Amino acid sequence: MDNKAISKAVINRLPRYYRYLGQLLDQGIERISSGELSRRMNVTASQIRQDLNLFGGFGQQGYGYNVAHLYEEIGKILGLDRSYSLIVIGAGKLGQAISSYFGFEKRGFKIEAMFDRDPDKYGGVSYRGTRIHPLSDLQEYLHDHVIDIAVLAIPADPARTITPILVDGGVRGIWNFAHTDLEVPDNVVVQSVHLSESLMQLSYKINH
Amino acid sequence: MDNKAISKAVINRLPRYYRYLGQLLDQGIERISSGELSRRMNVTASQIRQDLNLFGGFGQQGYGYNVAHLYEEIGKILGLDRSYSLIVIGAGKLGQAISSYFGFEKRGFKIEAMFDRDPDKYGGVSYRGTRIHPLSDLQEYLHDHVIDIAVLAIPADPARTITPILVDGGVRGIWNFAHTDLEVPDNVVVQSVHLSESLMQLSYKINH
Repeated sequence: MDNKAISKAVINRLPRYYRYLGQLLDQGIERISSGELSRRMNVTASQIRQDLNLFGGFGQQGYGYNVAHLYEEIGKILGLDRSYSLIVIGAGKLGQAISSYFGFEKRGFKIEAMFDRDPDKYGGVSYRGTRIHPLSDLQEYLHDHVIDIAVLAIPADPARTITPILVDGGVRGIWNFAHTDLEVPDNVVVQSVHLSESLMQLSYKINH
Repeated sequence: MDNKAISKAVINRLPRYYRYLGQLLDQGIERISSGELSRRMNVTASQIRQDLNLFGGFGQQGYGYNVAHLYEEIGKILGLDRSYSLIVIGAGKLGQAISSYFGFEKRGFKIEAMFDRDPDKYGGVSYRGTRIHPLSDLQEYLHDHVIDIAVLAIPADPARTITPILVDGGVRGIWNFAHTDLEVPDNVVVQSVHLSESLMQLSYKINH
């Protein structure tokens, strides 16, 4: 598999395949044709065949796709065959919402600790029992723990200030909810969820 | 302006232009060249010129862009020159996080009411004082109020069940945080924020 050949668009579609295949598994469906998957997912069958062929083509002529096998293979491609240690920066409403969502842990994303600069929050625990540390302990915490992913659920200015601490602390990925872009070296990945921008896209589409 | 000619990619980029121009305004910067905007936004100057030309090209040779004017024009294109009435379905952690974010209201997105099926939640008010109604009152509420956008901060199954009620109730856009696609008629827009899928894209990128 040539990683360079996989476009960003395909990568963006993979989690959706994974979701639909998971639903098929839950429904006890063992195999599916590209035509039927196409109908359910509302994309063309040729798109599906083209996307999945990139990963070695798991379909068999006249049989279709083995759902469990395809689910597992896409899971591996997405890196879901291993687990990840996470910390959440910001124990406000959004940080609490993220850390209380059970679905992430099921997929192997384990939230180890939360951090906040507000003395009313640190020292306590989150809704799910994750300990909330003072933000000033972040550097030391990262020195003592191997953390794969940091979730930034804080405003733009502190997000930019904290990013170098995360990078120096060995974090490999930043899941960024702050309304800003972040500068990181090439070996660190930033995946942003810009909620305001999503809402603006919605208002654009309502008006056009 | 030919709306058909504006690609999804450009639309996805517009809110980011809007964010950077807002930051420039905050910094008191009145005009900017495409080259300087390019450097700040980490996209090519020709990309910027090409994108902004689609909307009539607000730049002037040798002068660059008038920041305030461009900010205002992009805001209009994004539909931010009017206000929107919103309701939030689900007063759990995520619904509360969304409804307590001040930034949306500043942009004209006003949350009028929240709904929840949990008797422990309805009857009360959100963190910001928005009244939480019983979910069973949704249909009647939509009959009596003009609501532009419904935010779905609930699981996949109830999200699919509630969608037809929203559509019948005249909602024009659904901001969907549920882990599912939604079927709506052509005159209703769905904008989804699939958090699990965003996290999977991050894990993919960490591993490749």
